[in-house]
Amino acid sequence: MEQIKSFELSKEFLESLQENIESQHNELIIQSLDGANVADIASLLDELNMDEAIYVLRLLNPSMAADILIEMDEDPLGMVIKELEPTELALLIDQMESDDAADILILMPAKEREDVISHLQEREKSANILDLLRYDEDSAGGLMAKEFIKANKNWNVVQTIEEIRRQAEKVEKIYSIYVVDNRQHLLGRVSLKKIILSSADTKISDIYEKEIISIPTHMDGEHVAEIMRKYDLESVPVVNAKNRLVGRITVDDILDLMREQTDEDIQAMTGISDDIEESDSIFKISKARLPWLLIGVIGGLLGAKIIGFFEDGLSRYIALASFIPLVAATGGNVGIQSSSLVVQTLASKSVFDDTPWQRFVKGVMIALVNGIVLGGFVFLVVKFVYGFDAIFGLTIGLAMFCVVLLASFMGTVTPLVLNKFGINPAIASGPFITTANDLLGLAVYFGVAMALLNM
Amino acid sequence: MEQIKSFELSKEFLESLQENIESQHNELIIQSLDGANVADIASLLDELNMDEAIYVLRLLNPSMAADILIEMDEDPLGMVIKELEPTELALLIDQMESDDAADILILMPAKEREDVISHLQEREKSANILDLLRYDEDSAGGLMAKEFIKANKNWNVVQTIEEIRRQAEKVEKIYSIYVVDNRQHLLGRVSLKKIILSSADTKISDIYEKEIISIPTHMDGEHVAEIMRKYDLESVPVVNAKNRLVGRITVDDILDLMREQTDEDIQAMTGISDDIEESDSIFKISKARLPWLLIGVIGGLLGAKIIGFFEDGLSRYIALASFIPLVAATGGNVGIQSSSLVVQTLASKSVFDDTPWQRFVKGVMIALVNGIVLGGFVFLVVKFVYGFDAIFGLTIGLAMFCVVLLASFMGTVTPLVLNKFGINPAIASGPFITTANDLLGLAVYFGVAMALLNM
Repeated sequence: MEQIKSFELSKEFLESLQENIESQHNELIIQSLDGANVADIASLLDELNMDEAIYVLRLLNPSMAADILIEMDEDPLGMVIKELEPTELALLIDQMESDDAADILILMPAKEREDVISHLQEREKSANILDLLRYDEDSAGGLMAKEFIKANKNWNVVQTIEEIRRQAEKVEKIYSIYVVDNRQHLLGRVSLKKIILSSADTKISDIYEKEIISIPTHMDGEHVAEIMRKYDLESVPVVNAKNRLVGRITVDDILDLMREQTDEDIQAMTGISDDIEESDSIFKISKARLPWLLIGVIGGLLGAKIIGFFEDGLSRYIALASFIPLVAATGGNVGIQSSSLVVQTLASKSVFDDTPWQRFVKGVMIALVNGIVLGGFVFLVVKFVYGFDAIFGLTIGLAMFCVVLLASFMGTVTPLVLNKFGINPAIASGPFITTANDLLGLAVYFGVAMALLNM
Repeated sequence: MEQIKSFELSKEFLESLQENIESQHNELIIQSLDGANVADIASLLDELNMDEAIYVLRLLNPSMAADILIEMDEDPLGMVIKELEPTELALLIDQMESDDAADILILMPAKEREDVISHLQEREKSANILDLLRYDEDSAGGLMAKEFIKANKNWNVVQTIEEIRRQAEKVEKIYSIYVVDNRQHLLGRVSLKKIILSSADTKISDIYEKEIISIPTHMDGEHVAEIMRKYDLESVPVVNAKNRLVGRITVDDILDLMREQTDEDIQAMTGISDDIEESDSIFKISKARLPWLLIGVIGGLLGAKIIGFFEDGLSRYIALASFIPLVAATGGNVGIQSSSLVVQTLASKSVFDDTPWQRFVKGVMIALVNGIVLGGFVFLVVKFVYGFDAIFGLTIGLAMFCVVLLASFMGTVTPLVLNKFGINPAIASGPFITTANDLLGLAVYFGVAMALLNM
């Protein structure tokens, strides 16, 4: 006999759900998902194949199905929305706040997207979504939602509560009520707590906070996240060039953004070219990893050419070969440290940062310190521990010193240049740049050796 | 004559503030900071020297000074609180929520800490702070605050609003009202929005949400952050082993935690041993960078020993030296990719993750694919482009294959082992492990070469 398996996010539940889908036990499916969190159901649907996921979504009421859709991963979500009828999808979009709707619609080709939007019930919602789609996805305009509560400064508390009641269905979480003048200019905010604790006839103009932070629509999402973190904001109003209130950004979107950016930076640093997880297919993982590995290999093969160029000298001073990994590794480590410090500075700009000139001087000083310490250490070990003659020790030590200087310079300049061209500077710590640094380091190493040992 | 410079976070403002401090223009200082955000003032104070910072703090009212203290960076904060009199500091702590107070007190030696706590005005606050200090700083217990609004399920809306009024001073941001039974067991939550929209005599038991997420005190902070992100929570209740409500965690603390963890991971990956910024002193930056660079250098010097061991063979096949950087770099790149994938999985565990056995098999498969592609590619280039003989090409290709397999294995196992011992697995992508991999890779390379070329 059929059993109701109560909801628990587990492989067993997933399997029983798949069985129930196959045998079309619709009542069981609905009952088993009752009371489950939409984010958990979305995790389940991410694991189902597309037909199964759509089957479940069609069983649920549109409001719940919409909430689940919002929480799904991009890949399965993309397949599901491609398969749903435009009218069906419009019914779900009708239930969403405008920013979530825009995030989903942006995954579709423009033509199908318009088709869905034309089926939306409320004209205001369509207009809001079309408005949001105009903004760059990673800007404040692309992050904001059009749903929020605003109060005219001339209202009193009762009128404001009436407005909250009117908008209650549309605005799930209120946080703050934004205060505007008659021309929709943002004046400040008032908290729900203050509304509750004030008497009914209190004027909004008497209780609102004037010194608040607002964000222009064009601000970069990363910058918005840093502001919300620094000032402990759970929501922030977005204004257009005329200081008119056009939207608000909530902290849940910022948490997702921060997570994505961390993942992107780490992927850039490790040379993984796609958003993959350990649980993805072997083919997908290899496809994401191999391109950067191949670049590294091609770099290594070019390095072989460079060393081959010095083969005569090498055969006379065979010990030079022994120190190749030392030189290459140190160059790599110094370069990664330098670039990651620059990337960190770029991510959290402060007005108290040193000027470019101060930073340059300081960078050179640090490189000199590192170079002298490491070069000196290597000289001492090569001469006194490994027992080579002084000129050979000096060669290796000096080559180290030069490589540290060069790698510091490259590690500092590369992320700045990438950033200038709008490329994620974190890739400066990735395999491409590291490989380039390795090659330069080898050339410097043998250059110095040739000069000193008269090869 | 003196001028009032209105607040703007800039170097100029900082300088004028320093002048005003030196000439003790107290009125000017207070006026110029009027209306500024506490986080911005904290940024200013971070840039001042300790005496200047304390001078400003003493001028401001205790509530504002307390808010500023909370937002200051750890280093300057530590110096400031060491210098303040215990009674002075207690006056500021009196103004803070318990979690912020605990975060500051934990920076002090136990004895001085107790001294400050003994001067606190409210006995309840002291008890709360002492309670929080018992928890591990990075656990839910260490992150939570004791200030929140709770309502008994038998209350009605008016009684709840009365409770909000009573606690209004203590609880700055409310978010949710937690619902408990007579024995303080957590039952659910009710939003402020619902309170506002319900009539005065509505019973809380009729309007509260039952299906809510709560966190046990011992849960790791990183896990809490992931839950709040996944379920879009701006605050979450914390319960003890008996499901009694003991605190709540708010999203502002989580944003700070996520930022810190990202910085820590990237520092671990890049081998920077301390929390430094580009604007720190040359000495501090060098001190943070040199230890890991030295480890890399020592590794490189050991590598030189390994290669020196094969010197006879090398002098016969001098071309082997040319491919040392290729082998080392590929091993490093593969190892970093593998370890960062594992670190990512560890950070966002899912019940749908593959079993350890499945992951092992898949890891081996991916390593085989990568090894065959890269080894094959290298063989082809060495033989047909560079024109070496087949056996030499095979040697380099096979060595590559072995190094890829080995580096994949080490890159996968190392973070798992580190994690087992409670060490941040991200350091598996750092210089120490990369260096160890380099050495292993060299040994494998020459081992394979020796076997195939009969060195």
